[in-house]
Amino acid sequence: MRKILVIGAGKSTAVLIKYFQDKSISEKLHITIGDISIENANHLANNHPNTKAILLDVFDKNSREKAIQEADIVVSMLPARFHIEVAKDCLLFGKCMVTASYVSPKMQQLDKQVQEKGLVFMNEIGVDPGIDHMSAMQVIDRIRNQGGKIILFESFTGGLVAPESDTNLWNYKFTWNPRNVVIAGQGGAAEFLQEGTYKYIPYHKLFRRTEFLEVEGYGRFEAYANRNSLKYQSIYGLDNILTLYRGTIRRVGFSRAWNTFVQLGMTADDYTITNSENMSYRDFTNSFLAYSPSDSVELKLRHYLKIDQDDIMWDKLLELDLFNSDKKVGIPNATPAQILQKILMDKWTLDKGDKDMIVMYHKFGYELNGERKQIDATMVSIGEDQTYTAMARTVGLPVAMATLRILNKQITSTGVQIPIHKEIYEPILKELEEYGIVFHEQECDYMGYNPDGVKG
Amino acid sequence: MRKILVIGAGKSTAVLIKYFQDKSISEKLHITIGDISIENANHLANNHPNTKAILLDVFDKNSREKAIQEADIVVSMLPARFHIEVAKDCLLFGKCMVTASYVSPKMQQLDKQVQEKGLVFMNEIGVDPGIDHMSAMQVIDRIRNQGGKIILFESFTGGLVAPESDTNLWNYKFTWNPRNVVIAGQGGAAEFLQEGTYKYIPYHKLFRRTEFLEVEGYGRFEAYANRNSLKYQSIYGLDNILTLYRGTIRRVGFSRAWNTFVQLGMTADDYTITNSENMSYRDFTNSFLAYSPSDSVELKLRHYLKIDQDDIMWDKLLELDLFNSDKKVGIPNATPAQILQKILMDKWTLDKGDKDMIVMYHKFGYELNGERKQIDATMVSIGEDQTYTAMARTVGLPVAMATLRILNKQITSTGVQIPIHKEIYEPILKELEEYGIVFHEQECDYMGYNPDGVKG
Repeated sequence: MRKILVIGAGKSTAVLIKYFQDKSISEKLHITIGDISIENANHLANNHPNTKAILLDVFDKNSREKAIQEADIVVSMLPARFHIEVAKDCLLFGKCMVTASYVSPKMQQLDKQVQEKGLVFMNEIGVDPGIDHMSAMQVIDRIRNQGGKIILFESFTGGLVAPESDTNLWNYKFTWNPRNVVIAGQGGAAEFLQEGTYKYIPYHKLFRRTEFLEVEGYGRFEAYANRNSLKYQSIYGLDNILTLYRGTIRRVGFSRAWNTFVQLGMTADDYTITNSENMSYRDFTNSFLAYSPSDSVELKLRHYLKIDQDDIMWDKLLELDLFNSDKKVGIPNATPAQILQKILMDKWTLDKGDKDMIVMYHKFGYELNGERKQIDATMVSIGEDQTYTAMARTVGLPVAMATLRILNKQITSTGVQIPIHKEIYEPILKELEEYGIVFHEQECDYMGYNPDGVKG
Repeated sequence: MRKILVIGAGKSTAVLIKYFQDKSISEKLHITIGDISIENANHLANNHPNTKAILLDVFDKNSREKAIQEADIVVSMLPARFHIEVAKDCLLFGKCMVTASYVSPKMQQLDKQVQEKGLVFMNEIGVDPGIDHMSAMQVIDRIRNQGGKIILFESFTGGLVAPESDTNLWNYKFTWNPRNVVIAGQGGAAEFLQEGTYKYIPYHKLFRRTEFLEVEGYGRFEAYANRNSLKYQSIYGLDNILTLYRGTIRRVGFSRAWNTFVQLGMTADDYTITNSENMSYRDFTNSFLAYSPSDSVELKLRHYLKIDQDDIMWDKLLELDLFNSDKKVGIPNATPAQILQKILMDKWTLDKGDKDMIVMYHKFGYELNGERKQIDATMVSIGEDQTYTAMARTVGLPVAMATLRILNKQITSTGVQIPIHKEIYEPILKELEEYGIVFHEQECDYMGYNPDGVKG
């Protein structure tokens, strides 16, 4: 039996474990699930004969070292900041490792040592980052192999609620970490390339500079820019590209309404509100509006942000109970972002039967034989239920597939890496199709920002 | 002779030195001016018999210690972050010290030791902070002594260009550190109290939430909120006050136009622009606007920020050459704020004959014998020329006056302090009047935000 240690029994681990369990006989796998909560680990183990649940505190050196020493390969599904503890032990004991998280600077520093030991530390092999890398590089490499030159690459991903569970005016529910949604886009201007020009969007304009996307069978979406679209420019080999843009997908109208929170200052996370615990949702809203002895909080907000009374955006705010004077915040020393998160969680938490949805959209513009062309590729994945969510599936499956391939010596390039090479993405994308994770490609006219080469 | 050491021969030191020199015989003063540039020090010394210029690098321990040991009192006019070096030596050698800067946490930590040694470390005794503290506390104490209860305190200060030198559409020129103007308001929401409610304004709304102020003989001004209006609440003894607001004064229309820069993202100082050195002012402006093959930078900006073509704000932007494609930025790896500062300095630098102006406006609302009343106090000071500026005068004179009073044992309370006590502010405000720095008080109807006590 080959022993796989999975550390962290969180949301996206269920699908991963099931993949290993389903192949445990044919592939001779034994799975150990280590978590700080033995209940969580037991729940995922589900009394499967080839699965063991153990208590594992990643900061308890002895139990961590023991578990890693006994494994043949280690999958860390912990929050990203904890991977480094696991990585150091994997290096020490000569074990390969897989994570779905961004390569941290500390992780990157291990690269040389990992190579010297002949190990594979595969990262960013979830959905975003992960499936986005693989599906993008597959098309980019194909265009290049045909002799094409990539001039535009735009890539969008969104974790949304499935159409059948889409029951609020925002067309949105939390399908992942709510905090990341509330503070999304903060920490500096969004930077990207448009037709050879570097462009910058400050945070307070981010949600007013969206683009529309159409996905066949699913209708219209919109996307706002991610903070750093240029992060993978060199890694993807796109140094001379004209347009490079990465964004986050929402349903149309979300961003314009979300901008209300940004404009008011409700998403700020760098100071705390005085007396936050005892204030009502209405008090919270009012704290961003000037005092008036005679005007309502409602009218002050409408006037301040110039919202017409028949604007659907207004109903979106009402739906969230922003003006409710009975509902209390109840969090002491809370930042505006923490309070807003609380308010949103009242309304945007998935109901028991709700399903989630992952949407990915790539645009590839290129020149081939003197012609400008474009390929659009889209992928939509809808969850089964609240355990086997689309998020858990699109994160967990590629992690599991990569793990098994490393174990089977089908992935052999060593070092700290991400899945941008053909030997990795080709078989995994193929296997993902068996699980319904399929990209639909469409050739279309080049729709870059300047199809006619006009100067402006 | 009593020896005064003045460290730092910067902009605001000229008036200070002249004050000491004018009194050097009657008060038996010898002045030593220490600066990292001996030319600057010599220039200020101006061959005056009781004045010596020395080379003093505040980070050179030996020369610093020697100079401080030889002095009877030390005035530090260095940038605020350097005071602590001077303060530690003053403590060591038992010398009193005066600065015009905010009390830093490190300075505050010395308080007990300073008291134990029987020393006076007077800070925040320039104009803002300084004259604002003194003039506010004088009225607050007087109202209290009459049995009144302070319910509102609003305080505004601005460093502006004098009416006779006011020659651009912005009604503004740099009279002090330009960088502080460009990044003003950044680093967190502005917090203040309005009729008992805590209010918060995020940076990107700060310049759209101004108040108007009328100063007799000088017309209308506007003010935007400072970051922390509550800083002196307890220090002034205003813990139960309903309205507390501090702001920065500009001429009417400045803030609405400045907001253009904020909205575009041009005031950001947390990232650098790619290829900043070789870009034109027009390129810089365009980097905050979406790419278009057919539309001009001008129209894109107008549309983005919804500026009507007959809006004077537009002419303010044109006046700054924001759309000039010939003028180059010329600064490598510059932040947007650094580039904007360069652009503004082209137009907002004082001409040779230009004069500056300091405007201060206080509002005091109070209850006395069951009645609500209000006192407004205003002060305007206009510079003589570019050496004896209003800024140099209003900063330098109170510093000099406090220094002499400490030397003469007229200020005796020990410790690290600011000028909020009667023994300090009363004689200094009186002496300032001799130099034309006079507050005009006016009783008026209580104009708080809720004169009628309506609920809202």
